Amino acid sequence: MERVARLAAHFVPPPEHGGTESDRLERQLTLAGLGTTPEFEQAQNMTVFPPAKHDALGLEELLTPEEREIRDRVRRFAETEIAPVIADYWERAEFPFPLVPGFQKLGIGGGNLKGYGCQGLSIVGAGMAAIELGRVDGSCSTFFLVHSFLATLTVGLLGSEEQRRELLPDMGNFRKVGCWALTEPSNGSDASALQTTARRVEGGWVLNGRKRWIGNATWADVAIIWARNSESNQVNAFIVRKGNPGYSATKMENKIALRCVQNGDIKLTDCFVPDSDRIPGVSSFNDTNKVLAISRIMVAWQPVGLALGAYDMCARYLQQRRQFGAPLASFQLMQEKLQRMLANIQAMWLMAYRLSKLYEAGKMTHEQASLVKAWNTLRGREVVSLGRELLGGNGILSDFLVAKAFADMEAYYSYEGTYEVNALVAGRGVTGISAIKPPRAGKVQVQA
Amino acid sequence: MERVARLAAHFVPPPEHGGTESDRLERQLTLAGLGTTPEFEQAQNMTVFPPAKHDALGLEELLTPEEREIRDRVRRFAETEIAPVIADYWERAEFPFPLVPGFQKLGIGGGNLKGYGCQGLSIVGAGMAAIELGRVDGSCSTFFLVHSFLATLTVGLLGSEEQRRELLPDMGNFRKVGCWALTEPSNGSDASALQTTARRVEGGWVLNGRKRWIGNATWADVAIIWARNSESNQVNAFIVRKGNPGYSATKMENKIALRCVQNGDIKLTDCFVPDSDRIPGVSSFNDTNKVLAISRIMVAWQPVGLALGAYDMCARYLQQRRQFGAPLASFQLMQEKLQRMLANIQAMWLMAYRLSKLYEAGKMTHEQASLVKAWNTLRGREVVSLGRELLGGNGILSDFLVAKAFADMEAYYSYEGTYEVNALVAGRGVTGISAIKPPRAGKVQVQA
Amino acid sequence: MERVARLAAHFVPPPEHGGTESDRLERQLTLAGLGTTPEFEQAQNMTVFPPAKHDALGLEELLTPEEREIRDRVRRFAETEIAPVIADYWERAEFPFPLVPGFQKLGIGGGNLKGYGCQGLSIVGAGMAAIELGRVDGSCSTFFLVHSFLATLTVGLLGSEEQRRELLPDMGNFRKVGCWALTEPSNGSDASALQTTARRVEGGWVLNGRKRWIGNATWADVAIIWARNSESNQVNAFIVRKGNPGYSATKMENKIALRCVQNGDIKLTDCFVPDSDRIPGVSSFNDTNKVLAISRIMVAWQPVGLALGAYDMCARYLQQRRQFGAPLASFQLMQEKLQRMLANIQAMWLMAYRLSKLYEAGKMTHEQASLVKAWNTLRGREVVSLGRELLGGNGILSDFLVAKAFADMEAYYSYEGTYEVNALVAGRGVTGISAIKPPRAGKVQVQA
Amino acid sequence: MERVARLAAHFVPPPEHGGTESDRLERQLTLAGLGTTPEFEQAQNMTVFPPAKHDALGLEELLTPEEREIRDRVRRFAETEIAPVIADYWERAEFPFPLVPGFQKLGIGGGNLKGYGCQGLSIVGAGMAAIELGRVDGSCSTFFLVHSFLATLTVGLLGSEEQRRELLPDMGNFRKVGCWALTEPSNGSDASALQTTARRVEGGWVLNGRKRWIGNATWADVAIIWARNSESNQVNAFIVRKGNPGYSATKMENKIALRCVQNGDIKLTDCFVPDSDRIPGVSSFNDTNKVLAISRIMVAWQPVGLALGAYDMCARYLQQRRQFGAPLASFQLMQEKLQRMLANIQAMWLMAYRLSKLYEAGKMTHEQASLVKAWNTLRGREVVSLGRELLGGNGILSDFLVAKAFADMEAYYSYEGTYEVNALVAGRGVTGISAIKPPRAGKVQVQA
Repeated sequence: MERVARLAAHFVPPPEHGGTESDRLERQLTLAGLGTTPEFEQAQNMTVFPPAKHDALGLEELLTPEEREIRDRVRRFAETEIAPVIADYWERAEFPFPLVPGFQKLGIGGGNLKGYGCQGLSIVGAGMAAIELGRVDGSCSTFFLVHSFLATLTVGLLGSEEQRRELLPDMGNFRKVGCWALTEPSNGSDASALQTTARRVEGGWVLNGRKRWIGNATWADVAIIWARNSESNQVNAFIVRKGNPGYSATKMENKIALRCVQNGDIKLTDCFVPDSDRIPGVSSFNDTNKVLAISRIMVAWQPVGLALGAYDMCARYLQQRRQFGAPLASFQLMQEKLQRMLANIQAMWLMAYRLSKLYEAGKMTHEQASLVKAWNTLRGREVVSLGRELLGGNGILSDFLVAKAFADMEAYYSYEGTYEVNALVAGRGVTGISAIKPPRAGKVQVQA
Repeated sequence: MERVARLAAHFVPPPEHGGTESDRLERQLTLAGLGTTPEFEQAQNMTVFPPAKHDALGLEELLTPEEREIRDRVRRFAETEIAPVIADYWERAEFPFPLVPGFQKLGIGGGNLKGYGCQGLSIVGAGMAAIELGRVDGSCSTFFLVHSFLATLTVGLLGSEEQRRELLPDMGNFRKVGCWALTEPSNGSDASALQTTARRVEGGWVLNGRKRWIGNATWADVAIIWARNSESNQVNAFIVRKGNPGYSATKMENKIALRCVQNGDIKLTDCFVPDSDRIPGVSSFNDTNKVLAISRIMVAWQPVGLALGAYDMCARYLQQRRQFGAPLASFQLMQEKLQRMLANIQAMWLMAYRLSKLYEAGKMTHEQASLVKAWNTLRGREVVSLGRELLGGNGILSDFLVAKAFADMEAYYSYEGTYEVNALVAGRGVTGISAIKPPRAGKVQVQA
Repeated sequence: MERVARLAAHFVPPPEHGGTESDRLERQLTLAGLGTTPEFEQAQNMTVFPPAKHDALGLEELLTPEEREIRDRVRRFAETEIAPVIADYWERAEFPFPLVPGFQKLGIGGGNLKGYGCQGLSIVGAGMAAIELGRVDGSCSTFFLVHSFLATLTVGLLGSEEQRRELLPDMGNFRKVGCWALTEPSNGSDASALQTTARRVEGGWVLNGRKRWIGNATWADVAIIWARNSESNQVNAFIVRKGNPGYSATKMENKIALRCVQNGDIKLTDCFVPDSDRIPGVSSFNDTNKVLAISRIMVAWQPVGLALGAYDMCARYLQQRRQFGAPLASFQLMQEKLQRMLANIQAMWLMAYRLSKLYEAGKMTHEQASLVKAWNTLRGREVVSLGRELLGGNGILSDFLVAKAFADMEAYYSYEGTYEVNALVAGRGVTGISAIKPPRAGKVQVQA
Repeated sequence: MERVARLAAHFVPPPEHGGTESDRLERQLTLAGLGTTPEFEQAQNMTVFPPAKHDALGLEELLTPEEREIRDRVRRFAETEIAPVIADYWERAEFPFPLVPGFQKLGIGGGNLKGYGCQGLSIVGAGMAAIELGRVDGSCSTFFLVHSFLATLTVGLLGSEEQRRELLPDMGNFRKVGCWALTEPSNGSDASALQTTARRVEGGWVLNGRKRWIGNATWADVAIIWARNSESNQVNAFIVRKGNPGYSATKMENKIALRCVQNGDIKLTDCFVPDSDRIPGVSSFNDTNKVLAISRIMVAWQPVGLALGAYDMCARYLQQRRQFGAPLASFQLMQEKLQRMLANIQAMWLMAYRLSKLYEAGKMTHEQASLVKAWNTLRGREVVSLGRELLGGNGILSDFLVAKAFADMEAYYSYEGTYEVNALVAGRGVTGISAIKPPRAGKVQVQA
């Protein structure tokens, strides 16, 4: 408990989250974990995390020693630090700030970037981090995704040397946390049609517009803002620092998924950005796509993570919970579902792994990433839905993990491209015809 | 606002819900509804409820004038009173006490009971009430179910003349609210194996044991407790009044579904019940089944309600929300899902209607009820899942209704018999062989 | 052709079906049914048809006495005449000509037409005929559909008084058999884009073009040909009599579904039709739609028929077949599937029934018919697929009925509008926007 | 044509297949392939096989050069020799004997056996052969499976040195063809409960009993018969040679799947087998399982093959076939299905590949094989079902490949263990509890 107090002293939630700061801090400091309620003794909840039983086909053999080490390190953190407290944060729809120091020590924040204090994980290694976080909590996995594979990655990939040198050492270790603002109220699936403007002024740029669904937006240190250059009409990107008076963000309430992620509605009102904070590597939406291509691999791993956790919990629960004089694990209807979860998981893992390997070999296309992302979330939905059933009533309590994973999967299914958009990107890849937009001018567009 | 204050003065939440009573009251009184957030102007949220567009096959023709009147009356209440405030209660996992006065005037609390101040709804009419409540909020539908078709029904069906005369006038109009406690921590699907005991003592009975998942348990005026008679070893039922010192209930936290329903873990510790509060019509679990048979019809209607609401919202949303220069309603992938939702809804409605008619004709069997309950929740899951997809990101915000319905459906899928248990009851009906319990003693049980 | 006419007069198969005429005739006359092979004694095949167990919700109560009588009459015929021989015809992909005399006595050939020797069935009554035929054999149900609800119906609905007087007495009793030729090689889903031409000449019309998938085309007495009037560019319809030298039809081979239906590729080569054989009630595709609206109701009933038969067979089979020392009916995984088949069937029946009632009340729309047709085939596919699994190896033998129903369902799923086309017609109904054709000229079409 | 005559001279179908030998031969020799019927010019049928477009994730990189070579060799044979003629054989439910010489030259008959004239394929290499055959025709793939991975493998794995030396050189190159008889009329899923008896007599054994579903049984040179030793009550295996008077086999008719495979009902009537033809390596059902473990890997590959072919055909068809003025490939509903097929295929391939690698590393368990077999057929069913839809009407013509694959998949789904049995074997693996048999004697069996 003292430890939490100490850590929290270095990482206190910003006051705009409701309640006074001391109120909140006190509540967090007294957070004792869920505990196994005396009312339900038969089966353990997620605070004592179930052992990993999901590797039915020995897939860990495919990992390098480094990748196994990352997996084990992140798993240990997730099981011992996240699992005991997260259901309560999720319930209250709050970000688990006391966990940030743990993230800072985890050595994963720079993702696949190398240098400037970043760890240079392999893509598969980063995938291991994504799934081990997601196995325990989808929001934590998304926190990693947004920060490392969107915000930090944009700086590392497209930023200037100065920007890298300034930001990466901190961002690469979660000492500064980023958000990444592309989506707008009017443009979700049609992401490239963004309306936020960047107008050239003396010494910099003035941004105006609105963003929506931006994870970490309410408290991030650094916001990467995508906007349309008023002159060139092309997409540009800018770094907006915490405290910029032209930037405000309101927390989106009433989410049923990824409740710990603080998605914000951002307003940019004559938000001035100096020239040095324009990201020079971005001159059109094609550059945005360079970032999205990599982050989509992580999104393809994420549903695997939720699925792993759901499976591991079900495997234990069905052994512990008895009905009609026998463990639930002994019933045919239960076994069929459990093994179907497991088989889907093996396949999802292999798909994400193959995608990662293609990327590492410099061969991955957008269409491949979309194919795997769409399919992994489709199967992921099946897995957590089966898990939800297997736990019966306890399947709607997030204490027992699966309810939370079931809800979180919906966000994965729809973010970084809905299922439909990714399916149609993949469809374009295999047919050479884009069916995403309603075709105009009397002609179906056929790609060469 | 004054009205709410006045009503709430007569119906104030009990203090054990956390916070002081005045804190809570104040919070409720200042509840202003969700409002359409300025950040998202394209599509309306549930506070302005979407029009009913779901009756694709003109099914209302099958209703009597009285049944239509009930439907309209409950719909009006749900759309104008529940819709503007409920997402916020759901988010906070609180029961919407200020709505109780509205329930009291609705004239549905006695369900199909007639006399003693009860309204004697037809089963179809009660089904209309269940679906119109559920169309806007699943928890409100369940509040109706638990109170009217479990607690009140037990008194009306199996209670003594004195018990009816005392309780039904109030319970039939939600002036006293009931809960109904059968499920135990160790016995969910295997409901008849209950372990709570009732021991005969001078002038009454002493109850000991635990109950779980009991809706309304934390604040109900009247609890119907099912317990095993220590002498006969048969199941009996008892009325436990609010304030009985042997009764305590703890709210179950961290639910992802029906978050407004206050499910309680009940402890019965030497809980004394006078003879006059034993329900005389109950002498075995067969009597429990008499109540469950009727309530299961309502549970077969409930998923229809959630589905109707999800459909109506999607139908409006797809017209309002534009992407790629056209309303979402103009895309093939959207239309296919929308019409599939609609067709499923027609079929679910017809199934619940047919089941109700069988009951009204005195012909319904348990197996028929289980067949329809299982199937309607299976299809209902498909409908809300499709709806969730159709709304993209807004599909995970309960402001837009569908997220809430998506989550709530999971409770319907698993309560009053999980899908598996109901499927196997139906399976027993069609095969004559029970496959629910693992067969013992080397023989498959074949019914005569 | 003359020889065919002669044989067909007695309902003998035309020689082009392979083998000499006498060979085949002899084979048919000595056809002894499948018999229960001595190699498999545990479970009976379809020659002894399983009893009807599928009416789980007492739906027969919804039928009038006349409709029950039709059902019983057709069921008797199907179980005793069709069931013992049909698997063999299906295997050989031949039409069961020896059954035609039975059809002639059945009193269903005129469908819902009244007068001119037609029986004036109610739509529900005709639906009963469609499902009872389909319960035993999908091809026989389609034979009824094509003849009665396409060819005969067109004459009755849109023909001249003379045409009715001449043709209906024979067609209404299967003494003359019709086919109905709309679909063309280049136009399946896009049915209205037909290219067959009708050119005005002295005393009549000359037809040129090709048709495809036309059931009964190789041997029908009367072909209804839809063609585009070269002057008006509108769709017209013509009666082409057997023996017309401008008409030729080739049997389509290698079908996996409805193998007894003789689908033909038709060639019309300067096919002369006298004025008296133009159908006067047809002046555009809207008139075609009048026929299709009714036939689509029958197509909505057809999958119910296949599903009923599959269910009844599975219900018996699971009781008869034993594995691991117990009847298959005693296993959880089997029971869950069996009851899911049953529930789907109830819902499909209710949907087709409701659609029929809407039509009888003069209220049915195309969109409603498409909604139900699409959904009933979707669910029908699930039912026969479950049935196929339940029978294990015997599920791929058409002797055991379900294999045949499984294959036949695919034709129902795709004919009279594929699933996609019907879904998008229904989608247009609910959105007011047509998404069937790729929109042109930069605008999404919004209906008033 | 001359080539066929020449080949057929060396491999003529046995006369018991109906018709005189010369009749049949003539028919086969005049077999001209399906041709593209003039009635349907828009899209090509399978005689000109569609190009391989299915490797969306570049999986061929995972193959060794040898494995690629096998793949290419078998693909060439399948596309040029099997594709032009097989739909017609399938329609007539005949084995394509003229193709056997091609099989003899293919160098795959000995599967993974090495020595004695066998080629010693890697498991993955053999999988490539299985999928390339299945891509064009499921029956040909099964012919390979039954002969190479059941009959030949049993001799190679469990036979005596003499048996190997005598049989493998011929069997390893399809010069002698084997069948493998385990399943009995009364024992399908419960395979180990076999009732065929082997009684010890002077100089050998006498077999009595019946077998069912035995592929190649009507014409094989060598039958491996599994029987229960009357003394030990353990399972033994025997070689029965063609012409043994105690052996007779009747072709099973009326199959909807794998119609070219000649499944036989075998009768063994005092069938004498000399001591030298008892397979010495078999002393219990555990030995049977050694063979099944390997063959199940091949069965896990087989659905991949059907799926690949269906995908490749759909990919071409949707480009060729136009409706509403555009190729079908340009419609959203079509693209979503096509890419879903593709993603499933990638996953199925990876699952079978991983299973093969586990075997090659000496680590594969029965439970793993069952997990993958069950799942691959489940997904395979989805793929061919989607393909069936995509082709509309042409989806029910086996000329267009997909109809045939759709039907054949059903056999794969149910053979070598139904879906249910394999799911429960996998379930036993993950729970430690067998739920396959109804538990007896009051106890759920828990494995150590």
